[in-house]
Amino acid sequence: MPRINFHLQLAELKDKLLAMAALTQQTADLALEAYLKRDKGLCKYVRDNELAIDRAQRELDEMAYEIMAKEQPMAIDLRFVLAVIKINGDLERVGDQAANIAKRTKNSLKLEDVMLPVDFEAMGEHATRMVRLAVQSLIEGDAFLAESVRTMDDDIDRMNRLAHEELLRMIQERPQYTDQAMIGILIARNLESIADHATSIAADVIFWVRGADVRHEYLSTLD
Amino acid sequence: MPRINFHLQLAELKDKLLAMAALTQQTADLALEAYLKRDKGLCKYVRDNELAIDRAQRELDEMAYEIMAKEQPMAIDLRFVLAVIKINGDLERVGDQAANIAKRTKNSLKLEDVMLPVDFEAMGEHATRMVRLAVQSLIEGDAFLAESVRTMDDDIDRMNRLAHEELLRMIQERPQYTDQAMIGILIARNLESIADHATSIAADVIFWVRGADVRHEYLSTLD
Repeated sequence: MPRINFHLQLAELKDKLLAMAALTQQTADLALEAYLKRDKGLCKYVRDNELAIDRAQRELDEMAYEIMAKEQPMAIDLRFVLAVIKINGDLERVGDQAANIAKRTKNSLKLEDVMLPVDFEAMGEHATRMVRLAVQSLIEGDAFLAESVRTMDDDIDRMNRLAHEELLRMIQERPQYTDQAMIGILIARNLESIADHATSIAADVIFWVRGADVRHEYLSTLD
Repeated sequence: MPRINFHLQLAELKDKLLAMAALTQQTADLALEAYLKRDKGLCKYVRDNELAIDRAQRELDEMAYEIMAKEQPMAIDLRFVLAVIKINGDLERVGDQAANIAKRTKNSLKLEDVMLPVDFEAMGEHATRMVRLAVQSLIEGDAFLAESVRTMDDDIDRMNRLAHEELLRMIQERPQYTDQAMIGILIARNLESIADHATSIAADVIFWVRGADVRHEYLSTLD
């Protein structure tokens, strides 16, 4: 098989990963929208998307495996394919978190609607922005952008802690809304988990782009 | 390099993964023990272990990468190395969950000690047993054992739901213990996450052992 085909395959792998990333982000956005708008139809949509994400993950994994097995990529290409496999796993888990949000939303629909003292929209935007930038850093091979995603993680941790505190205070002050506040706490954690996966993706991009240096650093620590 | 060296390298990779798995399991057990015995010293120990787990993960990843780059493993060996890379990532996240439990434990030490209506020990045992069996299924190349781990996941989901319900009821009935119950809810979720990672490991073992068949199934779904 000519080597040019190999580069076409890498390009296709990248395209598939991009499609997977777009679907995952969209699903996370929809899940949060379902929660904020109390929209049962959107929950169903998120569930369907999650199945599509799982399928896409399997296809992408198999494609990466085929490339490895048949083309035996070297050096930077090998690191890229490995990064894709890991990033693929993180994206699939972003999909799981979206599905969790949708599940909790369905539970929340049985409860009285009450305003919670948390800016979920800002949290959600921040989290899916991190996913978007992490994937962009992969596409552009931009380790600096990937680094910036990692620093964004502190903000979402802070937002999550704040949400947690506010909602606990609400439970103390208005115990009749314990269930609603509890769902809010768990959804804030789901958003934080999405951001964690973005951070993980960014680390894999750095592994890919700065591969040689990082490995060197590592090797120099052995005797 | 002679091919016999390659098999020694694979054996060493497996050994390192086993050591990583043992450390991770032990750390998860210690974290839960710290929580149940309210032992601050153990929390520090968990934190140190988490750093060691992160180091072990990087070393294992780099070793897998070196094997890929230099030996270009084929077929079942390639699937094995890929499975190791994924499992390594899941084990590292088990370590993260253990660290989360230790962090929450430190917060709980500031609060009055109160008995919670949850059998955390049973949950913890079940979760770390799943990790142990998942790793054993890898060592023995036993897809049936891996399948059984996946079915065990339902039990822990049920235990987590029950814990959640009981602790919410406690918050309603004894609101003065909201903080303690809340920490309990989050620790139950951490244990459930550990079980999720075990399930993920089991899926990777199945990918490795049954590789050929699964891929065939997949390929036959394309036109």
